[in-house]
Amino acid sequence: MAYNLLKGKKGIIFGALDDRSIAWKTALKCVEEGAEIILTNAPVALRMGTIDQLSKECNNAPVIPADVTSQADIDNLFDKAIEHFGGGVDFILHSIGMSINVRKGIHYTENNYDYMHKGFDISAISLHRILQTAMKKDAINEWGSVVALSYIAGQRVFPDYNDMADAKALLESIARNFGYQYGVKKHVRINTISQSPTRTTAGSGVKGFDGFVDYADKMSPLGNATADECANYAVSLFSDLTKMVTMQNLFHDGGFSFTGVSQRIIDDMTE
Amino acid sequence: MAYNLLKGKKGIIFGALDDRSIAWKTALKCVEEGAEIILTNAPVALRMGTIDQLSKECNNAPVIPADVTSQADIDNLFDKAIEHFGGGVDFILHSIGMSINVRKGIHYTENNYDYMHKGFDISAISLHRILQTAMKKDAINEWGSVVALSYIAGQRVFPDYNDMADAKALLESIARNFGYQYGVKKHVRINTISQSPTRTTAGSGVKGFDGFVDYADKMSPLGNATADECANYAVSLFSDLTKMVTMQNLFHDGGFSFTGVSQRIIDDMTE
Amino acid sequence: MAYNLLKGKKGIIFGALDDRSIAWKTALKCVEEGAEIILTNAPVALRMGTIDQLSKECNNAPVIPADVTSQADIDNLFDKAIEHFGGGVDFILHSIGMSINVRKGIHYTENNYDYMHKGFDISAISLHRILQTAMKKDAINEWGSVVALSYIAGQRVFPDYNDMADAKALLESIARNFGYQYGVKKHVRINTISQSPTRTTAGSGVKGFDGFVDYADKMSPLGNATADECANYAVSLFSDLTKMVTMQNLFHDGGFSFTGVSQRIIDDMTE
Amino acid sequence: MAYNLLKGKKGIIFGALDDRSIAWKTALKCVEEGAEIILTNAPVALRMGTIDQLSKECNNAPVIPADVTSQADIDNLFDKAIEHFGGGVDFILHSIGMSINVRKGIHYTENNYDYMHKGFDISAISLHRILQTAMKKDAINEWGSVVALSYIAGQRVFPDYNDMADAKALLESIARNFGYQYGVKKHVRINTISQSPTRTTAGSGVKGFDGFVDYADKMSPLGNATADECANYAVSLFSDLTKMVTMQNLFHDGGFSFTGVSQRIIDDMTE
Repeated sequence: MAYNLLKGKKGIIFGALDDRSIAWKTALKCVEEGAEIILTNAPVALRMGTIDQLSKECNNAPVIPADVTSQADIDNLFDKAIEHFGGGVDFILHSIGMSINVRKGIHYTENNYDYMHKGFDISAISLHRILQTAMKKDAINEWGSVVALSYIAGQRVFPDYNDMADAKALLESIARNFGYQYGVKKHVRINTISQSPTRTTAGSGVKGFDGFVDYADKMSPLGNATADECANYAVSLFSDLTKMVTMQNLFHDGGFSFTGVSQRIIDDMTE
Repeated sequence: MAYNLLKGKKGIIFGALDDRSIAWKTALKCVEEGAEIILTNAPVALRMGTIDQLSKECNNAPVIPADVTSQADIDNLFDKAIEHFGGGVDFILHSIGMSINVRKGIHYTENNYDYMHKGFDISAISLHRILQTAMKKDAINEWGSVVALSYIAGQRVFPDYNDMADAKALLESIARNFGYQYGVKKHVRINTISQSPTRTTAGSGVKGFDGFVDYADKMSPLGNATADECANYAVSLFSDLTKMVTMQNLFHDGGFSFTGVSQRIIDDMTE
Repeated sequence: MAYNLLKGKKGIIFGALDDRSIAWKTALKCVEEGAEIILTNAPVALRMGTIDQLSKECNNAPVIPADVTSQADIDNLFDKAIEHFGGGVDFILHSIGMSINVRKGIHYTENNYDYMHKGFDISAISLHRILQTAMKKDAINEWGSVVALSYIAGQRVFPDYNDMADAKALLESIARNFGYQYGVKKHVRINTISQSPTRTTAGSGVKGFDGFVDYADKMSPLGNATADECANYAVSLFSDLTKMVTMQNLFHDGGFSFTGVSQRIIDDMTE
Repeated sequence: MAYNLLKGKKGIIFGALDDRSIAWKTALKCVEEGAEIILTNAPVALRMGTIDQLSKECNNAPVIPADVTSQADIDNLFDKAIEHFGGGVDFILHSIGMSINVRKGIHYTENNYDYMHKGFDISAISLHRILQTAMKKDAINEWGSVVALSYIAGQRVFPDYNDMADAKALLESIARNFGYQYGVKKHVRINTISQSPTRTTAGSGVKGFDGFVDYADKMSPLGNATADECANYAVSLFSDLTKMVTMQNLFHDGGFSFTGVSQRIIDDMTE
């Protein structure tokens, strides 16, 4: 069911890999709600994924490759977006995260620091770069809305989440700090959604991920939130209904974040 | 502009006093979005206010008086609601708060404890009573949404907010704890909105309130959120777009909550 | 090993029931560190417990019965304390909590509100009453330190903790709000310690408490903190080493509070 | 007044520049409390500062230069420390922070990313490197205590704090995540102290810093915490009194962190 919540709005969706991606679902939902969008991802991800299919389902949304660690690529992306839309955008989804330490199975206590820097660059500093570039080019409209996807490992320790936990803490800090600046300057609001662990292709890379997912599901009074539900929530944050929400990390997790222990977990433990 | 976000949904709005009330604005907005509602408030508030006018603007929504500290009144309210709607409700707004210590100008350090208990009963325990009664009568539908209005004094000290600060901390705790229980039992989600200080008739009772409002406005990158904007946000939380958000205290405050200090405040201080 | 950390300091310890109590251990530790103390508890608790033994071990500390819900009793306690010490006190431990709903095994969703009010009165508002009375009588010295014991159920849901969770949220709010007032007025600092679940006689009353304790122990990188360790921590907060710490809720829990999930719990779950 | 709280303990103090430094005060206080220490700082800071004077006042504590971004230097530091002490250390103070973006006066929205990476490397990742190296060399004893200095800009926005805010969020995340790992492995506890703004030589570099300091002082019920008081607090965290406190960010700020607004600020604003 669609409501036309984003009618007339224009946006950029970062990070749609395949049809399990939260960004993929969000792109579809935004279009369903009346938005026009541009799709972007790293060149290597575009090759691996099936984004052309998504583009078709999104009224032939342009696909613009961009490595988020490359200033030239981000410049090009916004130049193209402004040209395509004939002006700035109203919303941006940042759904980007990668840790080489995770991929290579390097334990948190033995992390390689070049990998760590690279991971932070892609997963967190990329948000700063996108916003800085957008601000320079005045590419986000008044009261625009930016959402980045995060995870509760930014607040509490999940051992297997490795240095991605630090990347998420950094991402949330950047959202908050840039949210202040862009809010003062142009009423642009910036928030992070702290989503339940989600069985995306990216998520699957984390060691012990299935254990995570089951534990989180049993701990959450409403169960884990799905990628589809996350897309819905993102739409609400892009809409005009949430204009005064900014600099927040918003838990979208079926209640996991404020459950100390659930009856289901206690029952499992005492069996 | 309406989206039909609440089409087919039924709800109860507590606490609409006059057209400055957040509950008043929310009632109007809910109806605009396609909901059917019932209005309720304390008998004394109904006499003081102008709720009949609101009822008319809300498709002649029934007005059912209820003192939230009276079990009989809350029982009657839900019985009437179930009868009227032919079943349970999908959303509830709790916008209720009162402190006798505030009204009588009694300093926090000299609070009267009978007044404090009375204030907690009205402002916080009322949410427990409403939910307990609803649960007994099975009066909230699957995936229903309950929102109570709070204020950041539940987390940080605002000296003039007096024992209402403690009431808000208690309210948020009850939302969280009952949110777990109702989530597990029937997927009902319960959240609080922590709203900017708002110049309602109720808010005006707080000493130094105008100072509060100006300070908060200067501190918030987007400025203070208005009652109308709060109504919009409440609608998003009643809608199906936010089904997995529960047990949260959600700041709707233009960024106040995560701003340590703003440039405007620093400028004011250093003049 | 003693350091004379509290040499010359005078204090009041509320809530020592028997030798499993945190208050009992804290009393001993304070005396060991050079303090003079007064012991107090509710008359009924004094009859049930063995406080005379503790008094002896504490250089014959006076035992003054006081029902914390009775203004007359709290007045009497401070009058006697001022008389005994020839002036105000330097520290106070508030280790008091009781829920009739818990004792009677009434489920959170069916709580009796008279019991709830009574529980809040004893467990939380008592701190306000103690501080209000002390302030009126000027019974706490400059830079005095007040510590109340709390539990993480004040922030997150532990279903069996029942309305004691709301009581702890209220207690922490009162500590914060009165902490502001007493800080401004007389540099008195007020904090809560959020302690690991502890097998005291009081704690044992909570349904499923042993499950709690084991779960918390497995979740905490350092294991659960003991009552003795809590006494040590309280001493550090009463000492001059922590003069600028106020209005805080301080987790003393072996890391439980910031652990999202531990390897031990994951291992248990996946067995 | 000394208590022998650290008698027999051995530690490493990072970051003592001159006698205004928190690290300087902490070094003195640790020695006063019976500890043996090693002093370390970046070679360039050692040349600029007057650390030889501090060494003398600390029973001729060895001074070992170490650039915290150099693995060779950190290896050398721990090798020397183990040799000097004949075994591992019991505590470490990490008081290190630097932002080239701040130094060069580059606005947050225009930050240079090479500078940002360098700043994170020095200010935050250095803690990971120190802990990783210590763990490999088994250089911290059972129940050792590590404290890093942070600032509330890690949680809330202080516009002039620039990318140092993000560095502090990252630092606190690393403390938390490594705290879990080192806790499980060897009961080593790791915390951050979130200190009032302090007029150190380093702090003075931040634009508008004096405005910060005054604002914070007026906002804090007890006023700003001094460097001396911070040293006292660090000592309490290195002592055996706080063995079960880990993975925490501990506010040492006279109540600033939980004060929404103070009467003094309201008075200033309404003049």
